[in-house]
Amino acid sequence: MNFASDNWAGASDRVIAALAEAAEKGGPAYGADELTKAVERRFAELFEREVAVFLVGTGTAANALGLAAYGCPGGVVFCHAQAHILVDEAGAAEFNGGVRLVGLAGQRGKLTPQGLTDGLARFPEGVVRHGRPVAVSLSQLSELGAAYGPDEIAALAEVARTRGIALHIDGARFAVAVAALGAKPADLTWRAGVDVLSFGGTKNGCVAAEAVVFFDPSRARDFALTRQRAGHSFSKSWFIAAQFDAYLRDGHWLELARHANAKAARLAAAIEGSAAARLAWVAQGNEVFALIKRQADERLRAGGAIYYPWPTDGLPPEALAGAGEILVRLVTSFKTSDDEVDRFVDVLADAGIV
Amino acid sequence: MNFASDNWAGASDRVIAALAEAAEKGGPAYGADELTKAVERRFAELFEREVAVFLVGTGTAANALGLAAYGCPGGVVFCHAQAHILVDEAGAAEFNGGVRLVGLAGQRGKLTPQGLTDGLARFPEGVVRHGRPVAVSLSQLSELGAAYGPDEIAALAEVARTRGIALHIDGARFAVAVAALGAKPADLTWRAGVDVLSFGGTKNGCVAAEAVVFFDPSRARDFALTRQRAGHSFSKSWFIAAQFDAYLRDGHWLELARHANAKAARLAAAIEGSAAARLAWVAQGNEVFALIKRQADERLRAGGAIYYPWPTDGLPPEALAGAGEILVRLVTSFKTSDDEVDRFVDVLADAGIV
Amino acid sequence: MNFASDNWAGASDRVIAALAEAAEKGGPAYGADELTKAVERRFAELFEREVAVFLVGTGTAANALGLAAYGCPGGVVFCHAQAHILVDEAGAAEFNGGVRLVGLAGQRGKLTPQGLTDGLARFPEGVVRHGRPVAVSLSQLSELGAAYGPDEIAALAEVARTRGIALHIDGARFAVAVAALGAKPADLTWRAGVDVLSFGGTKNGCVAAEAVVFFDPSRARDFALTRQRAGHSFSKSWFIAAQFDAYLRDGHWLELARHANAKAARLAAAIEGSAAARLAWVAQGNEVFALIKRQADERLRAGGAIYYPWPTDGLPPEALAGAGEILVRLVTSFKTSDDEVDRFVDVLADAGIV
Amino acid sequence: MNFASDNWAGASDRVIAALAEAAEKGGPAYGADELTKAVERRFAELFEREVAVFLVGTGTAANALGLAAYGCPGGVVFCHAQAHILVDEAGAAEFNGGVRLVGLAGQRGKLTPQGLTDGLARFPEGVVRHGRPVAVSLSQLSELGAAYGPDEIAALAEVARTRGIALHIDGARFAVAVAALGAKPADLTWRAGVDVLSFGGTKNGCVAAEAVVFFDPSRARDFALTRQRAGHSFSKSWFIAAQFDAYLRDGHWLELARHANAKAARLAAAIEGSAAARLAWVAQGNEVFALIKRQADERLRAGGAIYYPWPTDGLPPEALAGAGEILVRLVTSFKTSDDEVDRFVDVLADAGIV
Repeated sequence: MNFASDNWAGASDRVIAALAEAAEKGGPAYGADELTKAVERRFAELFEREVAVFLVGTGTAANALGLAAYGCPGGVVFCHAQAHILVDEAGAAEFNGGVRLVGLAGQRGKLTPQGLTDGLARFPEGVVRHGRPVAVSLSQLSELGAAYGPDEIAALAEVARTRGIALHIDGARFAVAVAALGAKPADLTWRAGVDVLSFGGTKNGCVAAEAVVFFDPSRARDFALTRQRAGHSFSKSWFIAAQFDAYLRDGHWLELARHANAKAARLAAAIEGSAAARLAWVAQGNEVFALIKRQADERLRAGGAIYYPWPTDGLPPEALAGAGEILVRLVTSFKTSDDEVDRFVDVLADAGIV
Repeated sequence: MNFASDNWAGASDRVIAALAEAAEKGGPAYGADELTKAVERRFAELFEREVAVFLVGTGTAANALGLAAYGCPGGVVFCHAQAHILVDEAGAAEFNGGVRLVGLAGQRGKLTPQGLTDGLARFPEGVVRHGRPVAVSLSQLSELGAAYGPDEIAALAEVARTRGIALHIDGARFAVAVAALGAKPADLTWRAGVDVLSFGGTKNGCVAAEAVVFFDPSRARDFALTRQRAGHSFSKSWFIAAQFDAYLRDGHWLELARHANAKAARLAAAIEGSAAARLAWVAQGNEVFALIKRQADERLRAGGAIYYPWPTDGLPPEALAGAGEILVRLVTSFKTSDDEVDRFVDVLADAGIV
Repeated sequence: MNFASDNWAGASDRVIAALAEAAEKGGPAYGADELTKAVERRFAELFEREVAVFLVGTGTAANALGLAAYGCPGGVVFCHAQAHILVDEAGAAEFNGGVRLVGLAGQRGKLTPQGLTDGLARFPEGVVRHGRPVAVSLSQLSELGAAYGPDEIAALAEVARTRGIALHIDGARFAVAVAALGAKPADLTWRAGVDVLSFGGTKNGCVAAEAVVFFDPSRARDFALTRQRAGHSFSKSWFIAAQFDAYLRDGHWLELARHANAKAARLAAAIEGSAAARLAWVAQGNEVFALIKRQADERLRAGGAIYYPWPTDGLPPEALAGAGEILVRLVTSFKTSDDEVDRFVDVLADAGIV
Repeated sequence: MNFASDNWAGASDRVIAALAEAAEKGGPAYGADELTKAVERRFAELFEREVAVFLVGTGTAANALGLAAYGCPGGVVFCHAQAHILVDEAGAAEFNGGVRLVGLAGQRGKLTPQGLTDGLARFPEGVVRHGRPVAVSLSQLSELGAAYGPDEIAALAEVARTRGIALHIDGARFAVAVAALGAKPADLTWRAGVDVLSFGGTKNGCVAAEAVVFFDPSRARDFALTRQRAGHSFSKSWFIAAQFDAYLRDGHWLELARHANAKAARLAAAIEGSAAARLAWVAQGNEVFALIKRQADERLRAGGAIYYPWPTDGLPPEALAGAGEILVRLVTSFKTSDDEVDRFVDVLADAGIV
């Protein structure tokens, strides 16, 4: 009953098999190998256009280095006030990207066109001392389990365009978002006006595989240098390429994501029917936010369930925990089993009876 | 006949098996897992003392972040003029470590106490505008295939101590150096006055596994933050831990290193006896520097041999290529076979007859 | 009728005379001169204790470099959401100080102990990925014209102490705050728990003179290097020292500040009695925040008055502009004359009659 | 008898008078004032073309921020091994400019086209891990008192152009070089292929006045932000503008420089005729490098003369000190008097007799 995070799961068998095969072969260092080239082609197919792709090992690196391509001295990047890049990456975007992050409010972790418009208004053109807006970054899924549809992304892109700033996606959970929305990757990115994407593999079955995808390859001119200087250029970079090769082949990545999403749906349905817990809101993808009665929480933990309580800053009234409740986040993964979900639900049912 | 670099080899079977096993299990994110703790204990045993160990994915990260622990504004780090950190890491130490690198001369890529003394003399105490020496970094093996013995390290440490600067080792090839010298890791590090070591696994059979080892754990206070901010904290960090667990178990790392060294010795012996090539100098470990006749070079490349020509800056006269010769570096690895060496030698023999 | 900002005023005659005298003499470069030493002594007297003092040319440099002394990778500095260091310095603290700024709410630009407590709670000890709190910075005067009394500072220091973080003051308007409060500099700083102060001279009659004052000189160990690396070490640094020497001599700085404050009080009193404007709140020091009727605003500007409209984010309801009003900031300086104030008041009176 | 450095001199009367006048007037903050605009026009006239000019307070800031406009991750800037930016600015170019400095050899502190060609060859195009050359910086005067003529600059620019890197001049002593060469500023800069110049005023009679002059204004797009983020944007920036206004008016800057040069020539001539000293080489501008007999050195210092011994690294044999000699640098300034020179010469003459 491990719902702590999708990065607690191990890795998909196919990913590991590909890694073992690549380890048998070896190859030229620093990305000059065939696997890396094959992966570049896979990304081009996936996104239905030419892209510049760079492989790195962590999502933090992908975000910080991708944003760095748009940075400038005094550069400002807007993101949600609870965005991973602002709250959970210890200043990586500021350090590697040379930018400052400005957090904006928004329901369920999502930015809104109006919020972005207001944020931009605080940085009038030509005023040097406030800094210069250079990008807006959204998380897909958001940090509160919400997915942005193509229209929502396009609406943000339209605001971004009024000031010529870039649109970046932290796609640590891009796969589950694509699976949840049933949308094409191209429609969720460049066709909606996205400039650069952190395409995450780690949380959805890879070991350590993230790709920075530039939809305008001309902006990637310095990226290889940025990555090397940051120490994120792997000598045996085929180890990331091999993961992505297996991950993207035959839609494996979406299979994994659909699995995770199905388990989250099963969990959410059970919570909805439970007397011991209620959904805080209807999340998408592989995250479930629930308000659990304290007694049930104790029983679940005693029974071995693992999950995190979640901060309630900025939540709407209906999502706030009442007396005797706590807000928790439950994350499923490509590896979550029906059995794990059902055991969780059983404890909950028992707790509800009392 | 691939002697390009030891980072072209794949990975050891045991390392891959451990990785597959860990991927099956998964575990808590960001280093809170059991494997990470086990690896920390292995390092303590290996070095016969308490150490603070941090796992990262690249040697560049290990070097830059390790040096950062000793950096200060205007901080200066001495290293050999051909050191990897100066020549091949695109400014990573400067960027991540906030230090400047000052290259010193020295035979076979090795620093000397006198060279370091002279280097320090250019930074008189109390003169702010030159910057402040904070560390000296040596490469073990050196970039020209030489190993530093315990006494040589101790002599450098003695000079470092006169100014209170740290002694850092870039140990990308620490394993082959230990194997070549037959010395204890402790004698090559803290007992000789070393403060921090980049302990490399990648070049000697791992996929991507490097450890920053602090012999004075108190200096590691900020390292977790430094690593996170740099994007080098892996969520599934057990993937590095699993590699090291297998690598260090039962002396596997030294077996791999001895294999590589034995192949280099076989290669060197053959070159010594060849009319088509001669050793530039007697290298240690898994690197051979040879002067090859141009005709032989052409035949070797036509026959499929892969290796790099090497720059001749700062070499002593006897190592300089004569007319019709080129200086090349040949690197063996844990995976190099006798057959590969022998085929190389055969081509060389043929070329020599002509 | 120039109430735009106190940095639009020129410089005090005594300051200029001292500069001219120093220019006649010259002296050793980079702070080894007698004037610099004299100024260091003046600061020690002023603060009734040993201090480490460093002269720089801008307030932004003073703030960013002073905070740098307490920075660490992933370091977090709390400040008011409208703080100059967050809003008006284009990322200087992040860049030079290697820290991230987290804005907190608070009435009239002032931090509160509870606000700081809540801010710290978002960074639980031992959680690496959020970053590590290292300092809290308050502005004296606040950005909305409020002064912190000794007790208020001590209360913030007490919260800071619970987590071992430093207390920094951006004292761009420290002089007018001291004059307004009638407090001793020591009581407003180290006796109340302040660690480091940006002591501003520029806004109160100097040309370009700011001092970073460390109350714990041991924390200033790297400051000379930090300043040099940032390009803020002046070769003819006596040019700053001469300004401070005149500024601090015989209480000249407080005379200048009292003058500015008196003019602000005269202005505030007139506004209080006006039908065309009202005070937004009772400011201290040399700033007046007023809600002016639009018609009066037009007449004032037509008559040559210069001042800035002010953003209304986060203001309490009573300070919000009604229909037909705008919020403006009026700043007086050491050079503001009664005549300037009276002309402003006259236009206002005329506008009010209509 | 102060020949320590030209930054020990005070400031020119005209410069101080202009500063006093500006201090009387005051004006809009952050460079929106009339004086700043006037100075921009003066620079355009001086260089006979449109330029983008930015005022800062120190030469280190001018160099570091000017180079930052050409920086990129892993960016490499070539300069002389004894260049001020490499040796005397505590890493400012690395920190603010995000570049690494690579020192090249060359007689009398001057770069040569061949040296630059060789330096560039160490960074083959497309090799990421070495970093990317972005600029070459020369010092005018060089650190060893030599001036680059227009042809020499053009020859370096030609090499720079082969790789598309920028040509930067550290013109801390640009005035004395212009005066010594009798060349037009345009011929020594953009007409010879220079991209950006640190135009120094401080060493030649200003208090603190340096200008970054971009000959391609499009490269200055981010400079205002770069300067603000670095804390080098002065609120009362008319204080620098006023200095330059007086400095550039009616050729005052060249008068000051010619004075300094004439005193250096007088000093050099006396040394040439002395038995107690000899010229190390024929320097240009306001610097004299001499080999002084130790006995004479003692007498001079006893008599109150102030000057620095100079390092002898990389000097040609004829400039090396013999037994009983030391190499010293003697710098004259706009303020050096005939009397100071003559007293120095008298002591030398006395010492020579013995």
